[in-house]
Amino acid sequence: MTAAPELSVLQWFNSEPLTLASLRGRVVLLHAFQMLCPGCVSHGTPQAKKAHEIFGSGLAVIGLHTVFEHHAAMTPVSLEAFLHEYRLSFPVAVDLPSEDGPIPQTMRAYGMRGTPTHILIDRAGEIRHHGFGAEEDMALGARIAALLAEPKPEEGH
Amino acid sequence: MTAAPELSVLQWFNSEPLTLASLRGRVVLLHAFQMLCPGCVSHGTPQAKKAHEIFGSGLAVIGLHTVFEHHAAMTPVSLEAFLHEYRLSFPVAVDLPSEDGPIPQTMRAYGMRGTPTHILIDRAGEIRHHGFGAEEDMALGARIAALLAEPKPEEGH
Amino acid sequence: MTAAPELSVLQWFNSEPLTLASLRGRVVLLHAFQMLCPGCVSHGTPQAKKAHEIFGSGLAVIGLHTVFEHHAAMTPVSLEAFLHEYRLSFPVAVDLPSEDGPIPQTMRAYGMRGTPTHILIDRAGEIRHHGFGAEEDMALGARIAALLAEPKPEEGH
Amino acid sequence: MTAAPELSVLQWFNSEPLTLASLRGRVVLLHAFQMLCPGCVSHGTPQAKKAHEIFGSGLAVIGLHTVFEHHAAMTPVSLEAFLHEYRLSFPVAVDLPSEDGPIPQTMRAYGMRGTPTHILIDRAGEIRHHGFGAEEDMALGARIAALLAEPKPEEGH
Repeated sequence: MTAAPELSVLQWFNSEPLTLASLRGRVVLLHAFQMLCPGCVSHGTPQAKKAHEIFGSGLAVIGLHTVFEHHAAMTPVSLEAFLHEYRLSFPVAVDLPSEDGPIPQTMRAYGMRGTPTHILIDRAGEIRHHGFGAEEDMALGARIAALLAEPKPEEGH
Repeated sequence: MTAAPELSVLQWFNSEPLTLASLRGRVVLLHAFQMLCPGCVSHGTPQAKKAHEIFGSGLAVIGLHTVFEHHAAMTPVSLEAFLHEYRLSFPVAVDLPSEDGPIPQTMRAYGMRGTPTHILIDRAGEIRHHGFGAEEDMALGARIAALLAEPKPEEGH
Repeated sequence: MTAAPELSVLQWFNSEPLTLASLRGRVVLLHAFQMLCPGCVSHGTPQAKKAHEIFGSGLAVIGLHTVFEHHAAMTPVSLEAFLHEYRLSFPVAVDLPSEDGPIPQTMRAYGMRGTPTHILIDRAGEIRHHGFGAEEDMALGARIAALLAEPKPEEGH
Repeated sequence: MTAAPELSVLQWFNSEPLTLASLRGRVVLLHAFQMLCPGCVSHGTPQAKKAHEIFGSGLAVIGLHTVFEHHAAMTPVSLEAFLHEYRLSFPVAVDLPSEDGPIPQTMRAYGMRGTPTHILIDRAGEIRHHGFGAEEDMALGARIAALLAEPKPEEGH
């Protein structure tokens, strides 16, 4: 297993600044998307929203806006309107642009291949699943529930 | 919790005769349907098929054809063609008709209100969920995974 | 163009017996289906229902139950329950079985290759479209409207 | 009937500048949308794309980006990336902003109530349908075909 790299964030929406470290003890669904990525808008982002609704506070759903193309078209100003129009209320981080290339820093640290990507992080902060593209709702629900069923770190000894 | 009543079956498709007793130690998804129930055909039965594909041998998916109306229209002969055309390969039991009313015996024993109904039975044979109508794939996947994460009976003491 | 062969019918549902001859002057959508054909249930039959609702009395929608397989599974008794459960209210004819093979007589007369098939017949009784399988709603709507826009026979000279 | 007001356009994508006057003699589907309007992205804009594919050169499909809210979020730069990502190849006009309010000029001239709106203009330049919100593909296909079936102006006498 691999420890989940900390998020590098330009700006947060729907939340005070968060760190993965502060979420230790909770299961995290990290949903990487771009607001103009059709597969995100039609499938990945509604799926993250559904997970947020179904699992409630047991699961920390974090959106990560990983702009790696059309940078001028997907600024934080446009993202804010997108979040409003699609009624997304979970915390969303804008991935920090890189100084030396189009791939932003968190996306690079996780080795993501594109969007949508979803990453599941367990209570101990380890990456337990890295999925690129579409995954069945049922399979994702099962992965999340399996991690939620694991004992909390302090209970594990 | 309530122990799951044993199945009362007229005929099996896709399987030798099964009993819930013989499935003890496994998690069971019991999918009650009628082949001419639109909500079953469009949602419930494809969902059971998906669970069968996603969870594999970890989960025992059992279809239960609980005919409580239009009895002459949904005979085992018609059901067999339905299973063929919809490529359903998990075991399907024909619920045993009652002698004194339209509701077949297993349906009555479980107190089902209609179709589709899905029942989740844990490794110890207890009913852990009784759902009538449509449920989100993600929520059902999570319920199944949570039961699969529970220790097997022989490991539980 | 080809004159549309008259229907050979065992039994009618939702209507007194009809003939194509009696519908001359109207545009006819003939929807051939089998109640256990998945592509009919999910697409073709709802499409015919939608055409019935959208075009109203301007269009004569006729269902034709062309059973060419699983004959014992799709009897008129089963069809009647199917029509009830799926709330289909347009006239439906049971295609007359052949004495010498599985393909019923109207299906054979039209040279249909399977189900769903939709046939469009103009006001003069000519076949103007023969479609097998799925067709876009928009394209079918356009075909129907184009025929409806043609002058009625008595107005055409 | 009402003559369709001429378009007031800031910028064109996928086309040289067009005028409705220059399209006289053809049927026009004017699809008004905003790139961050969920109902446009999921239904209205794919529907316009489908009409463009199904009717080919017989129909002039014109997109009109009528930004009336979140102006800073839906600039032409963002729209250009949207058109690229959603593979929209029909001509799209950016509606000219008004100097004295949020509603752009063409949107105001047509009295549109929001997005998506679709307007059908006949060969003679008259508005024949003004639809706000979702409409069935089949019904829209029929409306378009009915206008296409009308004689061309020069043939009309």
